[in-house]
Amino acid sequence: MTRRIHVIGIGAGDPDYVTAQAVTALNDTRVFFAMDKGDTKDDLVALRRLICERFIREPGYRFHEMPDPPRAKDSEYRQAVADWHAERARLWADAITSELGPGDVGAFLAWGDPSLYDSTLRILDRVAEHVDIDYDVIPGITAIQALTARHRIPLNDVGEPVLITTGRQLRASGLAGSAVVMLDADCSFQGCPPDTRIWWGAYLGTADELLFSGTVGDVGAHIVTARAAARAEHGWIMDTYLLRGPE
Amino acid sequence: MTRRIHVIGIGAGDPDYVTAQAVTALNDTRVFFAMDKGDTKDDLVALRRLICERFIREPGYRFHEMPDPPRAKDSEYRQAVADWHAERARLWADAITSELGPGDVGAFLAWGDPSLYDSTLRILDRVAEHVDIDYDVIPGITAIQALTARHRIPLNDVGEPVLITTGRQLRASGLAGSAVVMLDADCSFQGCPPDTRIWWGAYLGTADELLFSGTVGDVGAHIVTARAAARAEHGWIMDTYLLRGPE
Repeated sequence: MTRRIHVIGIGAGDPDYVTAQAVTALNDTRVFFAMDKGDTKDDLVALRRLICERFIREPGYRFHEMPDPPRAKDSEYRQAVADWHAERARLWADAITSELGPGDVGAFLAWGDPSLYDSTLRILDRVAEHVDIDYDVIPGITAIQALTARHRIPLNDVGEPVLITTGRQLRASGLAGSAVVMLDADCSFQGCPPDTRIWWGAYLGTADELLFSGTVGDVGAHIVTARAAARAEHGWIMDTYLLRGPE
Repeated sequence: MTRRIHVIGIGAGDPDYVTAQAVTALNDTRVFFAMDKGDTKDDLVALRRLICERFIREPGYRFHEMPDPPRAKDSEYRQAVADWHAERARLWADAITSELGPGDVGAFLAWGDPSLYDSTLRILDRVAEHVDIDYDVIPGITAIQALTARHRIPLNDVGEPVLITTGRQLRASGLAGSAVVMLDADCSFQGCPPDTRIWWGAYLGTADELLFSGTVGDVGAHIVTARAAARAEHGWIMDTYLLRGPE
């Protein structure tokens, strides 16, 4: 019998971002598969466990931690990602086969939403080539939505598009219109004109939340300093920001 | 005393998309303010009421319907939107003052997420210039997330950006990379090259859900036909789609 897998978006930090659909899927799950990312992200592991403890009514579940294969640093970016996905897929297929009996239900918990800068779906697609699994996807509140909600701002200007992008892409292509930047360890907004508007947030939806807004010229340097200090304090940081041209 | 307002994202159709945070805000609310959009969107009004009935534990709330001012058809787009926002802000300020006592809590329910192609936050900003209100924003699952979850696909290619845009903008600018198109009554994907890939969905997360995927050349005409038939049957349609260039 087919093993079933839920890919559950658990939202961007606040356990209250969990949806009713995610709660149902959490309660349906016997084994939660998780990557062991090392001790720097202890806070994130703790939050996952807190979400399970809070929303699962009859705790018959367990966590199965899998080692996360290292990503090659010296090869070309796309190739390195492809190799890493293949290695993960191999480890996941082994774990799913050994930890779930036929007909059992497992789950992967994804920060924010499983569709956004997350490799879980791509890797499960590869797993499904070798192992008989059926999986569904439960959407979750992304850091983008947490950012705009906490700043109480629209994502887009009226009738206008908005780009979701990365620090790497922003540095390569510059800003046109509105853009949300994710995965940016380098504060790439510093390359934008000083009158560019920025709405920045980190640890969104948690007790450690940081929010700054203004122009890059006015608040940019302050964000760089605050980000470095917070990262040093917590050992990790997840941040995102919205940029728009001058008003 | 300040009147408090929640702007609550209730997700893109499935009541199970409602978050724990939204449930708390729903239960905190005394008056739900709603626009009267005419009878074509009866299904949407019914779904709002269903969400309230399902998640509110002690029903002491009520709905207050407000007329929705017509949008001028003959003036320039931006000016028409600005005038319409100003007129709405006047009606909302009156309703909030008359329906809520000082210290009371009201709410506006937004489809999907309040930040995405929704004018509630812009209008409340204007209301706040004249009436003493304090508002917060509760994020919700967008149609974009429902679309990718139901198709079980990532929104972005690895490390690549994705544009959130409108049919109008797609027709004006064409497709570069990945784009999600919203607010497109004209099936503007028909202007894309036939090997463009499309993942389309309507009535996402509901019993009437429609999903199609393939290339524009293979499934485009079929989507146009199915969309027209569904719109005729239901009297309204909400659809969205993801486009990517050839593989």
